[in-house]
Amino acid sequence: MADTTAHTVKSFDEDIAQLRSIITRMGGLCEVQISAAVEALVTRNVDAALQVVADDARIDALEAEAEALAVRIIALRAPLAGDLREIVSAMKIAGVLERMGDYAKNIAKRASALAQAPPVEPVVIVPEMARAVIGMIRDVLDAFVDRDVELAQAVCDRDQQVDDFYNSLFRSLLTFMMENPHYITPSTHLLFVAKNLERIGDHATSVAEMVHFTVTGEHIVDRPKTDDTSTFARL
Amino acid sequence: MADTTAHTVKSFDEDIAQLRSIITRMGGLCEVQISAAVEALVTRNVDAALQVVADDARIDALEAEAEALAVRIIALRAPLAGDLREIVSAMKIAGVLERMGDYAKNIAKRASALAQAPPVEPVVIVPEMARAVIGMIRDVLDAFVDRDVELAQAVCDRDQQVDDFYNSLFRSLLTFMMENPHYITPSTHLLFVAKNLERIGDHATSVAEMVHFTVTGEHIVDRPKTDDTSTFARL
Repeated sequence: MADTTAHTVKSFDEDIAQLRSIITRMGGLCEVQISAAVEALVTRNVDAALQVVADDARIDALEAEAEALAVRIIALRAPLAGDLREIVSAMKIAGVLERMGDYAKNIAKRASALAQAPPVEPVVIVPEMARAVIGMIRDVLDAFVDRDVELAQAVCDRDQQVDDFYNSLFRSLLTFMMENPHYITPSTHLLFVAKNLERIGDHATSVAEMVHFTVTGEHIVDRPKTDDTSTFARL
Repeated sequence: MADTTAHTVKSFDEDIAQLRSIITRMGGLCEVQISAAVEALVTRNVDAALQVVADDARIDALEAEAEALAVRIIALRAPLAGDLREIVSAMKIAGVLERMGDYAKNIAKRASALAQAPPVEPVVIVPEMARAVIGMIRDVLDAFVDRDVELAQAVCDRDQQVDDFYNSLFRSLLTFMMENPHYITPSTHLLFVAKNLERIGDHATSVAEMVHFTVTGEHIVDRPKTDDTSTFARL
């Protein structure tokens, strides 16, 4: 194309930087939303929970912004090979972060429901699990911005820790439900909260895979796809 | 660009047609996988369930194929405006179908677990719910191929039926668990099966929204985003 000059290349870098910054903001909001949703759950604070539900719209708006910018960059710059792969990955990562936001919103909805039901004991594991997935999101976005393949790989490896938290919480909840049949309704909400956090960990892992692919052009091999593991408890 | 000739335009249409056909094949596989997973669940057939788990790799491979083709089309043709939007939507739809496949795979894993546990009564609602989501997938892919906005809108409207099935199954399972505390483990698996089907319906709805956007350039308004509704049971 006639306009692939140094000036255009510079503008392209500016476009990419802007796209990265939108995604970093989305990631920051996801961390805040997950943390606030779990805090509302633990403190049984309905108002705080409803605020998290309302704030999810900000993540959705940023995703639309990221996609519109990515499409505009592609249309204006006709980027090739590595540049195009980076833009496509950025668009996909924005989509994954939007879904993480949906999970946080769903945790907040359940927190609001749980605040109006009798307390469920195994809730204590939830904040630890949330801290683990928030750390994965923070690191995977650093890996994305710094194109750091090793850090991306490390995030993948940490997903097992989240799965272990989930297994532990799952078993505690089953026992709790069997001993307290009248607590089954709140317990099922907590079960879905744990599943949401476990899915957020899976999504952080899939972002790490996208970062690895963007930087190296190769897919991370020998990893199960983003899905529950096949161990009975994790199903 | 020098090569935007009638010949190139024709080739572009061929590229788009090829991309559409990959997505149609993915959709067909998703329908088959959901149906087979639920059949395995109802018939308590572990071998059939494990086959569904194994076959998910075919959907994953098609998604990778769709994304690679989309990136190749963008790189070679530098499509603008509507054409670019269609390719980006196709790539996103492929991603959603891959997730639907993951949900079907997860249902199959749970079917295999459930086949080794005592039967849970409310299972009867599951096949009806599966038929409803399979119909949504079929129609939304027809809407995608035919660029049929009305059909896409109709798919969105039908998601409520799936939500009603979920609410009904959720309540039946809670009652069943309270009356049969020792059936809580298999019941929680069925709860997640119902949630997976409900999420597949949400995903079909989000594809319908993408089709609407691709064709009209406008987002469907006045719809909640893809997420659980805020009714207590749906949480």
